[in-house]
Amino acid sequence: MPKLIDRPTIQQLIQQADINDLLRYIEEAFIAYSSQKAVVPPVGTLTFDDPPGDVHIKYGYIRQDDYYVIKIASGFYENPALGLSSSNGLNLVFNQKTGVLESILLDEGYLTDVRTALAGAVVAKHLVPKKVSAIGIIGTGIQARLQLHYLKEVVDCKEVFVWGRSPKHAQAYKEEMSQHGFTVHMASTTQELARACNLIVTCTPSTTPLLYADQLQENTLITAMGADTLGKQELDVKILQKANLIVMDSSSQCQEHGEIHKAFKNGLLKDKKMIELGDWIMSPERSLSRGLVVVDLTGIATQDVQISKFVLDHL
Amino acid sequence: MPKLIDRPTIQQLIQQADINDLLRYIEEAFIAYSSQKAVVPPVGTLTFDDPPGDVHIKYGYIRQDDYYVIKIASGFYENPALGLSSSNGLNLVFNQKTGVLESILLDEGYLTDVRTALAGAVVAKHLVPKKVSAIGIIGTGIQARLQLHYLKEVVDCKEVFVWGRSPKHAQAYKEEMSQHGFTVHMASTTQELARACNLIVTCTPSTTPLLYADQLQENTLITAMGADTLGKQELDVKILQKANLIVMDSSSQCQEHGEIHKAFKNGLLKDKKMIELGDWIMSPERSLSRGLVVVDLTGIATQDVQISKFVLDHL
Repeated sequence: MPKLIDRPTIQQLIQQADINDLLRYIEEAFIAYSSQKAVVPPVGTLTFDDPPGDVHIKYGYIRQDDYYVIKIASGFYENPALGLSSSNGLNLVFNQKTGVLESILLDEGYLTDVRTALAGAVVAKHLVPKKVSAIGIIGTGIQARLQLHYLKEVVDCKEVFVWGRSPKHAQAYKEEMSQHGFTVHMASTTQELARACNLIVTCTPSTTPLLYADQLQENTLITAMGADTLGKQELDVKILQKANLIVMDSSSQCQEHGEIHKAFKNGLLKDKKMIELGDWIMSPERSLSRGLVVVDLTGIATQDVQISKFVLDHL
Repeated sequence: MPKLIDRPTIQQLIQQADINDLLRYIEEAFIAYSSQKAVVPPVGTLTFDDPPGDVHIKYGYIRQDDYYVIKIASGFYENPALGLSSSNGLNLVFNQKTGVLESILLDEGYLTDVRTALAGAVVAKHLVPKKVSAIGIIGTGIQARLQLHYLKEVVDCKEVFVWGRSPKHAQAYKEEMSQHGFTVHMASTTQELARACNLIVTCTPSTTPLLYADQLQENTLITAMGADTLGKQELDVKILQKANLIVMDSSSQCQEHGEIHKAFKNGLLKDKKMIELGDWIMSPERSLSRGLVVVDLTGIATQDVQISKFVLDHL
């Protein structure tokens, strides 16, 4: 019988973990992916109309590793009205040599949230401007919280500006994150936020741009987490056109359904310098000054492999 | 916490079930699929080189139903040398309205075997020649056993010819199936088998044709179960060209990677009468005389949905 690990166990394990240790696992996810050491088929998607929902199946393995992993994550957006979380899911860990199911991580979407937030911290570690004036967070949900939690370890800055569609949610965010050592300001517009911050993380399910090129400081890192399916977009296309560098977790996924996919398909990024995150981490260029950098994260299966391994290695 | 159902429980439940009840569930799988009541994305596949293995992820749902299902089935072909079954897998049953994981069916591939064999019986129920002279089984594995087990319920014939590459396995098959009321003859060639049988089921992982057009009787039903991925083929292409009717579980899957895919892509089936199994079941034509009929089964997610529902409905 496979080992069954429930959410409270997983949550406690992750919360007590050394963040640098977690970061190493996720860094390895990007390196393995970009250096062709991983096998990652296209993401499987299942959508529902009534009530609306979607399911993503991400799966794959790192060669010569112990496991292969299938990760299922769903969003059913009317769940909160029923008193249920909109997110759900689990990670299945199989033996890579025999196909035997070894562990079922009943994380209910928690590990997806964590590995997504850790990716933001990995990005900051390798691409953040030398001096961060303030951190801008666009979005006020779980991901907005976790991003800040993990950024703490890699960015020496406690000044935070937050912007969300709902001032009530932004207020709640401010109150909560202030308790974790940050000075949180509520920005009344994204323009106000962009004027103060040179590290901006967007983590909303927006389908229309929230941030514009003329709002930005010259040396700014933008990590765009939100766009993971067709139709979602957080940045005005001029930001991509203005960027000195575009970094993607997976060029195939980003070009297919990430923040950059529309601009890419419309041929607007032809002469742009674009690189995968794993390649960037391994590249000798990475200490150079960079101007405006946009990072497009869609979430890749090796992150699910690595976060699952982290749990099993630390049980 | 989701309900966890282990293989012995599932196996006992299926073995004690009314076969006609099981057949109704699987018949409904084909009807729902062909009448566009189901949402079934393309099959996900993950392959391994060392040791060789493959994983299929089939997933989807029937609209207005209670569940959506993700089925994982794997084959790791060197497992038997380790004392492990080559097949493995599980069915995950989620609430279609909330995404909550309701049940984990740890069937280790058993339900895939069963729903595959039941499809063969559904085919025979709706397409078998009026008088079956003898049943021909090509293959001697688990599927060859289960096919006969479920055919018993729909075909009034106890004469069986079996052929397999290994005479030893064919002998073991003969001995085992003889205990279930069949008179089993070992055919020394597929020609001998085809001369005696007008209901032939092929269930091998062959990549080269095992059966040829000039071997067949005029009114014969061939159910080809083996070819479910690129590269597999059990029938010589002339059989498809000669067929009066070709029935597919899923036209998209069969044309992509089923028994007929090569002939289809080479344009050899252009004027052929082809229909999906679910459409055939619902069609008023289905009592007409048919000559040579070939049925191509690749296995569809609605079968996984329905067999999972059967288990949950009969727990």
